[in-house]
Amino acid sequence: MLDINKAIESLDWKKEPQGLYEPIAYTLSSGGKRLRPTLALTAAECVLNGGLLSGDVPENVLPAAMALEVFHNFTLLHDDVMDRAEVRRGRPTVHAKWDDNTAILSGDQMLIEAYKLIAKVPSDKVQKTLELFNEMATGVCEGQQYDIDFEKRSQVTIGDYMMMIEKKTSLLLAYAMRIGGYIAGATAQQQQALYQYGLHIGLAFQIQDDILDVYGDPKTFGKAIGGDICSNKKTLLLLTALENADAESMAELQRWMTEDRQGAKEKIEAVTAIYDRLHVRQKCEAVMEEHTALALAQLDLLPQNEATERLRDLAERLAVRRS
Amino acid sequence: MLDINKAIESLDWKKEPQGLYEPIAYTLSSGGKRLRPTLALTAAECVLNGGLLSGDVPENVLPAAMALEVFHNFTLLHDDVMDRAEVRRGRPTVHAKWDDNTAILSGDQMLIEAYKLIAKVPSDKVQKTLELFNEMATGVCEGQQYDIDFEKRSQVTIGDYMMMIEKKTSLLLAYAMRIGGYIAGATAQQQQALYQYGLHIGLAFQIQDDILDVYGDPKTFGKAIGGDICSNKKTLLLLTALENADAESMAELQRWMTEDRQGAKEKIEAVTAIYDRLHVRQKCEAVMEEHTALALAQLDLLPQNEATERLRDLAERLAVRRS
Repeated sequence: MLDINKAIESLDWKKEPQGLYEPIAYTLSSGGKRLRPTLALTAAECVLNGGLLSGDVPENVLPAAMALEVFHNFTLLHDDVMDRAEVRRGRPTVHAKWDDNTAILSGDQMLIEAYKLIAKVPSDKVQKTLELFNEMATGVCEGQQYDIDFEKRSQVTIGDYMMMIEKKTSLLLAYAMRIGGYIAGATAQQQQALYQYGLHIGLAFQIQDDILDVYGDPKTFGKAIGGDICSNKKTLLLLTALENADAESMAELQRWMTEDRQGAKEKIEAVTAIYDRLHVRQKCEAVMEEHTALALAQLDLLPQNEATERLRDLAERLAVRRS
Repeated sequence: MLDINKAIESLDWKKEPQGLYEPIAYTLSSGGKRLRPTLALTAAECVLNGGLLSGDVPENVLPAAMALEVFHNFTLLHDDVMDRAEVRRGRPTVHAKWDDNTAILSGDQMLIEAYKLIAKVPSDKVQKTLELFNEMATGVCEGQQYDIDFEKRSQVTIGDYMMMIEKKTSLLLAYAMRIGGYIAGATAQQQQALYQYGLHIGLAFQIQDDILDVYGDPKTFGKAIGGDICSNKKTLLLLTALENADAESMAELQRWMTEDRQGAKEKIEAVTAIYDRLHVRQKCEAVMEEHTALALAQLDLLPQNEATERLRDLAERLAVRRS
């Protein structure tokens, strides 16, 4: 397997003007799971040589895989400005460490850097890859806009929410799979299966995130429990509660969502109790498991090899993760 | 000649989520000279069919020409956030009319939209065009960063300044010429001449802008005279004055630059008087004319036809413009 971390580290940011490139180096060096490029490389490995021979993924898949990671980090950088988030992966965010203008301009340059990596895709595949990448990038921006819109809107359905997280979170995983597969020579059907796998693990991943925010173990979750409840975030849990609430639970939920004065701990406990009463956790876990199953089902349409096995493991681990 | 305004207007922004696309429609409908796409189309026309036959520019140059205009408007949108500019082309800027987050996210999407247009370049030329476009975009971001850096730095040389405006303003014109020519089949030498023409008219244009800010006719200039002086902006005029000042003029200039309390009118008149004494206007006009001459000289290396004539007119008009 190609070493994606090494490849990311090999990018040279010791360039002038430093004010533009230092924040990019800072953002890309903060680690993270490198999930998107890993998916792209694994998708490529899965379909390589018709899936019959297990072999090394060719170097020529690497630029697109890196482009996906650079793009992902660009979105985090700009989202953190918009959300006024001060900390990311245990370190100050770029706008907190530098300033808003630095975060805007270095973020813009990161997006351009992603396209520089796309320009390195093999010549006969660069146009189609660029089109796919643009579709993905558009969807992610639309998802971010819907996320902002939904914060301000009183009526958001579960359907709205699923559409939003599909765009904001899942599309990037879906296109990572598809682009990796496409460059390695996947058939149209294989590309479709890879795409659907990425889409469904993305949805499962986000739903598990929502569940862990309320029901996670504080020791392993890494963030404070109940953050979404405190901020009235319209997660799948809250929307499921609102769609299933009897009159009494509804009144109680509404009261907790409008009253700011109440202590956070009291609010978290009270809302969690309402969730428990309405079996919100079980309902959300059922949706998550459905998407995990849909992701796993896609793998049956692909060549069966070591890479497919890793994709199967990943989908199964996502569903039982604790952090 | 293809109608660039019609082409820009034909882009469809009536899409969901409106919060993302409306600011893009608003920005692109605010007019402007459409200089960059016009340059790209004119460059294409100049070299088309080896420059021997005057003919209609093929439709396939249009997407790249539009990408340059969309990119230019993206930079204005994000620059206006960074500069806290409230008005652009007589209308509220996007962050003033909506908010900062809208300007950031819609700007990001505009950059992606530019790349969507690049993906429509003919297949055999899309990779090279993407590379050229990325080089241009990188240079423009670097130029913006230098502009920000120079605001905070006490020592900026004329050389620093020329490098900055070359990146921030001229590169986009240079690459517009080169990309338009490249897609229409220009030779390497022709591409180089087109590029250099764009670069030098860009420099001449920016220098003329600096001059007009002080010596323009308030009736035709469109902006208030002396804005750069009021804000101590390090223009070619100020840097030329600082590099040519005797001890007395230097002390006077420094005093006006540090004292905030003095009335704007008094400051503009006093600094203009120093400029007059040091022949700053003549010196800057000489630099501008030098770049106009360099731009015109490039045209001799190109096929001579109606398009070349329009490029000659443009360079000559730039040098004597009043607004």
